[in-house]
Amino acid sequence: MNWEQELSAKAEVINQALDRYLPDADSQPALIHRAMRYSVFAGGKRLRGALALAAAEVLGQPPEPLLPAAAALEMIHTYSLIHDDLPAMDDDDLRRGKPTCHKVFGEAIAILAGDALLTLAFGTLGRLQTAGFAAEPVMRVVVELAAAAGTDGLIGGQVVDLESEGQAIDPDQLAYIHLHKTAFLFRAALRTGGLLADADARDLQALAGYGTSFGLAFQITDDILDLTGDEILLGKPLNSDLANRKATYPSMYGLEQARRLAEAQVNKALHSIACLGDSAAFLIGAARYLLNRQS
Amino acid sequence: MNWEQELSAKAEVINQALDRYLPDADSQPALIHRAMRYSVFAGGKRLRGALALAAAEVLGQPPEPLLPAAAALEMIHTYSLIHDDLPAMDDDDLRRGKPTCHKVFGEAIAILAGDALLTLAFGTLGRLQTAGFAAEPVMRVVVELAAAAGTDGLIGGQVVDLESEGQAIDPDQLAYIHLHKTAFLFRAALRTGGLLADADARDLQALAGYGTSFGLAFQITDDILDLTGDEILLGKPLNSDLANRKATYPSMYGLEQARRLAEAQVNKALHSIACLGDSAAFLIGAARYLLNRQS
Repeated sequence: MNWEQELSAKAEVINQALDRYLPDADSQPALIHRAMRYSVFAGGKRLRGALALAAAEVLGQPPEPLLPAAAALEMIHTYSLIHDDLPAMDDDDLRRGKPTCHKVFGEAIAILAGDALLTLAFGTLGRLQTAGFAAEPVMRVVVELAAAAGTDGLIGGQVVDLESEGQAIDPDQLAYIHLHKTAFLFRAALRTGGLLADADARDLQALAGYGTSFGLAFQITDDILDLTGDEILLGKPLNSDLANRKATYPSMYGLEQARRLAEAQVNKALHSIACLGDSAAFLIGAARYLLNRQS
Repeated sequence: MNWEQELSAKAEVINQALDRYLPDADSQPALIHRAMRYSVFAGGKRLRGALALAAAEVLGQPPEPLLPAAAALEMIHTYSLIHDDLPAMDDDDLRRGKPTCHKVFGEAIAILAGDALLTLAFGTLGRLQTAGFAAEPVMRVVVELAAAAGTDGLIGGQVVDLESEGQAIDPDQLAYIHLHKTAFLFRAALRTGGLLADADARDLQALAGYGTSFGLAFQITDDILDLTGDEILLGKPLNSDLANRKATYPSMYGLEQARRLAEAQVNKALHSIACLGDSAAFLIGAARYLLNRQS
């Protein structure tokens, strides 16, 4: 299996887990459950979940029992997309080639579907205990995900992103947004895998460093794709950052320099996990994939 | 101390805990932290938090170490109010005598402040371990609150409430809304106190039964106050349910019958905890207070 096939295999088991953990589409109240499933299954590469599984595997922990954690990461990611797309936020109509949640279900249900996915993410972590983990490491994951998703993570990044729209911002503010909006959830994904594999301090730091650099590189390449990508592959119109008056790496540094900065972060990610050796093959492949991603 | 004074004393320590746990108003990004604090400290009786503390006290557990759980319950309650008040939901301008969160901070920040309080609630539960609780009961509380706040609780109630606006609904649907929107979070508050006091199955059932009946009685008396209360004491205009075309107990059963139904739930609540004896004095006082509440 090449890296893309490995990712697909991981995404497949994560999707099956999500399907088991999400309430049935016809269980009452059906409207909210349909909305949650619509957005969760509207596509998505399951990178955060897959990286959490892979981080644990590097340390010899089989991935299967970690599926609730991988699913929780994807629920949090999906909730953040639903709320980001709302009219009061970025007001986006398309996501992954499909109408956004509020376009299909209305604003009220979209807000509640996001709320419900965030809530369910924490509830789903309880399943890690059924899968055999002690309460102690599971609580560490609860705290980890709450921190990464809170105002010193995802939400903080979104606030500064909104405040910066149409403003002249400096490189520090741009780095703040990308770190908080994107990189910290990737770091939490890697650390989640580590925490559940009982990683020692050195390995946890290696995984965290990889996660942060990977996340930054992911966001820079996302910015680049928004300018140079294929609309069909991306599932959304190009230049949406320009339309939303967002500061991006290409707009601040130019396309070529942005590419070099992405490459530097990829190298930093690879350097972080050099100590983990060959068992980190999936993580190495993931970092390299960023430099050639098409969507 | 009479019951009101006891409640005030409990509310005071819960407020101090919330002040410690919420990010400082001037920590970055300040706007979201100010919005979170604005809504959390806009008033509120801290009934859910106080009942969690009281439930533990009934079983001989000192309340102090439970403060993170009490604060988490109040964060979840506040998040649900912020999102309920949004233009896409009930579109309310006033809450507890003050402009609602989105009126002061705008819609985007209000959505994110709600998200952040929900997220922080789960993060705050991690503090229970610092306070001396083992991870095992803390994880039970995580799962309990996620269930009570999810689509089979708070959010489910809100969805059916929204769907029912201006519709002719039957008594079962009305009971569904009140149970899910209000009673289940009270039940979770009581169970949280029980779980952290290592309650046996009988006591946990007693507390849960009390919480459900208390919550229903609370919501029925809320409906009644919306018609007959004092606008100054309530901090919002009367007849908001009529304006929002909400089905309520008085609109379905008439005022007198609604009062009798509230009384019946109060008696049911008292009956549930009869087995707990005199140590349940605060819970008994809380149930009786509902029949005379002015706000």
